[in-house]
Amino acid sequence: MSLGRARGAMCGMEHVSEIKAVRERVAAARRSGRRIGLVPTMGYLHAGHMSLVEASVADGLYTVVSIFVNPTQFGPNDDLDRYPRDTEGDLKKCADAGVELVFLPAGDEMYRPDASTSVQVRKLTDTLCGPARPGHFDGVATVVTKLFNIVQPDRAYFGQKDFQQLAVIRRMVRDLDMPVEVVGCPIVRQPDGLAMSSRNVLLNGDEHGRALRLHEALCHARDRIGVGERDPVTLTTEMLDILAAAEPRGIDYVSIVDPETLQPVLRIERAVLIALAVRLGPTRLIDNMVVDPHAAGT
Amino acid sequence: MSLGRARGAMCGMEHVSEIKAVRERVAAARRSGRRIGLVPTMGYLHAGHMSLVEASVADGLYTVVSIFVNPTQFGPNDDLDRYPRDTEGDLKKCADAGVELVFLPAGDEMYRPDASTSVQVRKLTDTLCGPARPGHFDGVATVVTKLFNIVQPDRAYFGQKDFQQLAVIRRMVRDLDMPVEVVGCPIVRQPDGLAMSSRNVLLNGDEHGRALRLHEALCHARDRIGVGERDPVTLTTEMLDILAAAEPRGIDYVSIVDPETLQPVLRIERAVLIALAVRLGPTRLIDNMVVDPHAAGT
Repeated sequence: MSLGRARGAMCGMEHVSEIKAVRERVAAARRSGRRIGLVPTMGYLHAGHMSLVEASVADGLYTVVSIFVNPTQFGPNDDLDRYPRDTEGDLKKCADAGVELVFLPAGDEMYRPDASTSVQVRKLTDTLCGPARPGHFDGVATVVTKLFNIVQPDRAYFGQKDFQQLAVIRRMVRDLDMPVEVVGCPIVRQPDGLAMSSRNVLLNGDEHGRALRLHEALCHARDRIGVGERDPVTLTTEMLDILAAAEPRGIDYVSIVDPETLQPVLRIERAVLIALAVRLGPTRLIDNMVVDPHAAGT
Repeated sequence: MSLGRARGAMCGMEHVSEIKAVRERVAAARRSGRRIGLVPTMGYLHAGHMSLVEASVADGLYTVVSIFVNPTQFGPNDDLDRYPRDTEGDLKKCADAGVELVFLPAGDEMYRPDASTSVQVRKLTDTLCGPARPGHFDGVATVVTKLFNIVQPDRAYFGQKDFQQLAVIRRMVRDLDMPVEVVGCPIVRQPDGLAMSSRNVLLNGDEHGRALRLHEALCHARDRIGVGERDPVTLTTEMLDILAAAEPRGIDYVSIVDPETLQPVLRIERAVLIALAVRLGPTRLIDNMVVDPHAAGT
């Protein structure tokens, strides 16, 4: 609340904490002829998030970044309390990247004590991260619906690192006729191949080294498909061998699925999503790659 | 589909069957400075519906009426197949009342075969009509969300005859931050007291006479509260006696509840909702009245 309607410290960028203030700023931008881009985040912004911001700014949109660690998408065994936060650093990155509005809601701005409405996407949430994180995608779909209704963006940008989340949001937008264009952006990786994630900061040096096996396993599968392997069972077995070298606390899944339905394929004949979730110490990491057996050089 | 983009026969009013056509017409109205009013209906329009239309027209809004018998809000034991329809009559009533756009979607325009998203409002749907109609309010909340996203109205009008539906929609709009103002309009009754309902046409003459007991029971409770009765159990017992004279096939509920939470009250100290659902032959009728024990002349 202390941020109120005050302008943020950064030149040209505002940050607000109230829904009413967001609506006012967006309405003013729209009156001045701007179209609106939204990048929903949980903060602790990294190069992956910033690639979404850059896409929106490059599209010429009045770019809104929301920063909200949404409690309803964390389960009782998830890492809500450990989730990293750096509001000051996030605001500086946004201002430098040309963001025009940051929405930093307090928890009580987003959820009333008697809130009782949720958005549910079935089927797509039965696989991959769904079983290990019951309620997670309901929380995601509900908070994204709220953010869409608050900001009313023309376009919203999401990373393909959370491939299932992107698929769920696309399906929700289609099924509920939401008037927004969903844009998916490629995974951004560190030079060593590790996919950018806010949770990477939770890894110690040893865990970071072991985490490189995730990308290695995906590249292995991609290369094996490139030379003609078509059997998902063979490939997942080989990937599990590589991941074992990461000495994980657990492997939630290694799956080769249809990128639309997220259902397992029996044989690799079209483009597939190869996705995995691994627990390294207390930290759960996910990564994925879409591989088309008929594309040259995948 | 045959209606396509063609203008309806009525002067000044259009009817369209495609979502894209609705968006085009509404965008054009908004560009010309109009605000948008939506009256969602299942057709077979009666004076209750028309009071909603009149409210929107009187508010100066570009008034959109949707006519869609939504299959997802009917359960397997409900009366989807019996639900009355009269598209031609509905269009004439809309044109005469100053409606500017009627949206008559075909079923396949609203639901794809692999649709998997729903909106759920808990707690408010546990009482009254909820237990007898499992899934009904999920179907209502989902289709109303879709209609809101398609039409993007400034205001949407609903009748208080479906009091629980109105409460569910208000809660959904609040919880999901939907940018629409929900307007509730009073019940419209026939001169004999029977609440207007599309289902009234399903009653035979004898059932119609017996149906008058519903309003009689509500008036009895109102009058008894007016002279000091404060015990819901006493009042519901007396109402059940009156309803028994209607020789119902069944009484789903007679309830005295808080108008906000829809939970039963132990003693009538503030305004209450008195609501009932009765089966007369194969037809299920609902009615209700809000009674404030401290208001003069209720």
